[in-house]
Amino acid sequence: MARVGPHPAVADVRRAVREALADVPHDALILAACSGGADSLALAAALAFVAPRLRLRAGLLTVDHQLQPGSAQRARTVAETGGEMGLAPAEVLTVDVGTAGGPEAAAREARYAALAEAADRLEAEAVLLGHTRDDQAETVLLGLARGSGPRSLSGMAARAGRYRRPLLHLPRDTTVAACRAQDLTPWDDPHNEDPRYTRVRVRRKVLPLLEAELGPGVAEALARTAAMARQDADALDAWAETAYQDCALSDIGGSVKVAVAELDKLPDAVRRRVLRRAAIAAGVPSGALSATHILAVDRLVTHWRGQKAVDLPGGLSAVRRYGTLILAISPIP
Amino acid sequence: MARVGPHPAVADVRRAVREALADVPHDALILAACSGGADSLALAAALAFVAPRLRLRAGLLTVDHQLQPGSAQRARTVAETGGEMGLAPAEVLTVDVGTAGGPEAAAREARYAALAEAADRLEAEAVLLGHTRDDQAETVLLGLARGSGPRSLSGMAARAGRYRRPLLHLPRDTTVAACRAQDLTPWDDPHNEDPRYTRVRVRRKVLPLLEAELGPGVAEALARTAAMARQDADALDAWAETAYQDCALSDIGGSVKVAVAELDKLPDAVRRRVLRRAAIAAGVPSGALSATHILAVDRLVTHWRGQKAVDLPGGLSAVRRYGTLILAISPIP
Repeated sequence: MARVGPHPAVADVRRAVREALADVPHDALILAACSGGADSLALAAALAFVAPRLRLRAGLLTVDHQLQPGSAQRARTVAETGGEMGLAPAEVLTVDVGTAGGPEAAAREARYAALAEAADRLEAEAVLLGHTRDDQAETVLLGLARGSGPRSLSGMAARAGRYRRPLLHLPRDTTVAACRAQDLTPWDDPHNEDPRYTRVRVRRKVLPLLEAELGPGVAEALARTAAMARQDADALDAWAETAYQDCALSDIGGSVKVAVAELDKLPDAVRRRVLRRAAIAAGVPSGALSATHILAVDRLVTHWRGQKAVDLPGGLSAVRRYGTLILAISPIP
Repeated sequence: MARVGPHPAVADVRRAVREALADVPHDALILAACSGGADSLALAAALAFVAPRLRLRAGLLTVDHQLQPGSAQRARTVAETGGEMGLAPAEVLTVDVGTAGGPEAAAREARYAALAEAADRLEAEAVLLGHTRDDQAETVLLGLARGSGPRSLSGMAARAGRYRRPLLHLPRDTTVAACRAQDLTPWDDPHNEDPRYTRVRVRRKVLPLLEAELGPGVAEALARTAAMARQDADALDAWAETAYQDCALSDIGGSVKVAVAELDKLPDAVRRRVLRRAAIAAGVPSGALSATHILAVDRLVTHWRGQKAVDLPGGLSAVRRYGTLILAISPIP
């Protein structure tokens, strides 16, 4: 008996895209961001199939980073493939990649800036990204290695602003199988094999060893951890925001005063988030604010023995005066 | 010039023990649990040094699991070493290890039962355990591989009831160096090299690869993650407990009723903890309650389309009746 319906992998990708778009109003434009790799190629094909059935318009964006010989030609090929799928518009976005923050970060920044510009210009409702469960597992491991706390274990969001990641629960094997079943030939980015990139080493060496030594299902467990860590972090951030409003005595740009007695009632996890929130409200650059800074400010609250001012990045400091914690530009008079 | 004072590793271990005992009243008895391995041997030696200076009494417990030939003789040797250090009492606790839950779990259960019995009998204020930062990192990785959420990433607590873990922030290298500097010969448990144990594979293969591929400091990052995850989980558990008290309409053994409107106001992370709390209050065995069960009950709250009862372990189920969620023994009339 001939199989009825699409290959299971194709069906999985289409279902994921359909569920991610369930709340989109008719006639809206949805764009798939497509590198030509298996994940985003399967995503684009699924969008092309699903969109007309949901009465949506669907297009494709592909970014030419101009970092490899032949990248312009390859980007044109991806856009043509999108056009053949029925995606319109199917645009090449050509970007100049800077150097700030290292090659991976600079390429990412240029790519997202171009996607945002195109989405605005085309008045798109959403941009779909092809990240899979394996990408999520890699992101969690990279966050774990940084040790910067549960927020860094949250991985990537299924939705963030205009971006949606429909494939975040599907393994990479599914997108590879979906491409094969539809005679789509993915482009294998040589950067994805370059062991100078930490993410590549995580993918090629660390995750396979974890699977071998701890049992299969590690990528799934990491993705599950990410989802739970994200919920936890969201709830604690919401609590901290409410608590900050409750204990901030004044919040004028460059100077924030907080009631110590109110802070002292909060659990450690919430109090430290409130202190972080207060420091940023006072003007400390968030990227420069470390856990060590927050712990030093926290000791002004919980281990008060008449300490001096705590220096913070951006030329600010924190002092305790009687029952008030003051975060302001140094020296605090 | 001759070095003044103890070897740095010895000083680190002694400082850790001193700080862990800062709040203990004079003349109290503190016991070191000692296997004879480097970690707990360095711990016992530091306790013997620190205790008289803090005006505390100090003793040693070592457990003979009777699982290896010569274990009784080895346990006697550890107790004698403790006696030579000035630790008194220095007792061997001989246990019979069962089989429930696998060999590691059964040995752990027998060991902790014996330690608790001895601590009660000797009226000890605290029992010190020699777990290091490396043990903590292993525990976090094992929790991560289970994917059972942020609580399983919290690792071991620095304090839990009568137990304290003073060395949780120190690397294993420090305890090994401390033993060497004090001419103490640790006993290397052959189980610590047996690759049939998942923890041994994590120690011997996974962590070294992570350090090699992601950079040194992975164990430290994992331990830092554990500390933050523990604070977060504690804060969320406290929130969920308060929220449960606010939304439980009745809580009689075997039947719990909760107001759906109150549940619906809570963030996902808190609402799911409240549902877990409610299910356990109704009589669901906590060990059998999975995230999948909680998600199904949660859909009765957040995605209500007139679903049937959700089956729960222990012969219970959850139903929604108008604005009330009922968790009780099935069938709910």
